Amino acid sequence: MRSALAIALLLSSMAGSSSAAAPPAGEDTTISMSVRTVGLVQGSNVVLLETANGKTLLPIWIGSIEAQAIDQRLNHRKPPRPLTHDLLETVLATLGARVERIEIDDLRDNTFFGKLTLRDARGVRSRIDARPSDLISLAIGAGLPILVAPHVLEQAGVDAHTLQP
Amino acid sequence: MRSALAIALLLSSMAGSSSAAAPPAGEDTTISMSVRTVGLVQGSNVVLLETANGKTLLPIWIGSIEAQAIDQRLNHRKPPRPLTHDLLETVLATLGARVERIEIDDLRDNTFFGKLTLRDARGVRSRIDARPSDLISLAIGAGLPILVAPHVLEQAGVDAHTLQP
Repeated sequence: MRSALAIALLLSSMAGSSSAAAPPAGEDTTISMSVRTVGLVQGSNVVLLETANGKTLLPIWIGSIEAQAIDQRLNHRKPPRPLTHDLLETVLATLGARVERIEIDDLRDNTFFGKLTLRDARGVRSRIDARPSDLISLAIGAGLPILVAPHVLEQAGVDAHTLQP
Repeated sequence: MRSALAIALLLSSMAGSSSAAAPPAGEDTTISMSVRTVGLVQGSNVVLLETANGKTLLPIWIGSIEAQAIDQRLNHRKPPRPLTHDLLETVLATLGARVERIEIDDLRDNTFFGKLTLRDARGVRSRIDARPSDLISLAIGAGLPILVAPHVLEQAGVDAHTLQP
């Protein structure tokens, strides 16, 4: 749990950055992001995603236990016992399936929505609705980027320069 | 979160009930149990399993978020968003697999251990290590009993009559 001040600074600058945009149709225009940090801001947990060039950040509010799970994975700390995400990964491996793609594809009423794409033992793909906290934890576990829809980043993304005034 | 007093009464009577026994070998001698309640005792969460005749209880200490997840399932309350166990069940259904058997098969250093048996789309069975809290949540979701090894119940089981002095 780090960077609480940095995240607080950043969020205080977000007021004017919200603007709606239509979701894109057709080819893959998602933006590849990864987890920069997990922090606590005024008693609430936030996970901060960043683009590959570090220029744009996406703060996502999550529950405290989800924040702990992500923080542990991010910092390569093994929990005393495997958590539910570890069990989910073991189940996938046992069934010969794997996580192929992690997306955050919508933002409605301040709630982020996402999808998990699985590839089963026969190579068949399935796309499943999931919460961002589950998706981010699975993305770290699988070493995958978090693919964010452009209209989501346009609505809720933050310029990283606001961290260095 | 109910029955805190009942559980407290019960646990206060447990001091003399602990005795080790060798695990059984061979055929299935497990005892079928289900969740009686989830409660908070002196700030710690406990889930209380009971045998079919209600005569023997098994208290298992779990984390607070795990207790919430089990309590919600037990009382058929839908969380605002699907939790990780819901995602795990969706993943299983999507891959054509199902939970076939839930066991709590060992108790070492006051820690319960268990196994999840899956049956995949081809009918192949796999047995996976899991925490009791995950197992109990999945058992409720699948409508399955929790099968407890005799030596575990002998070590940590409690006579339900101690609830009605």
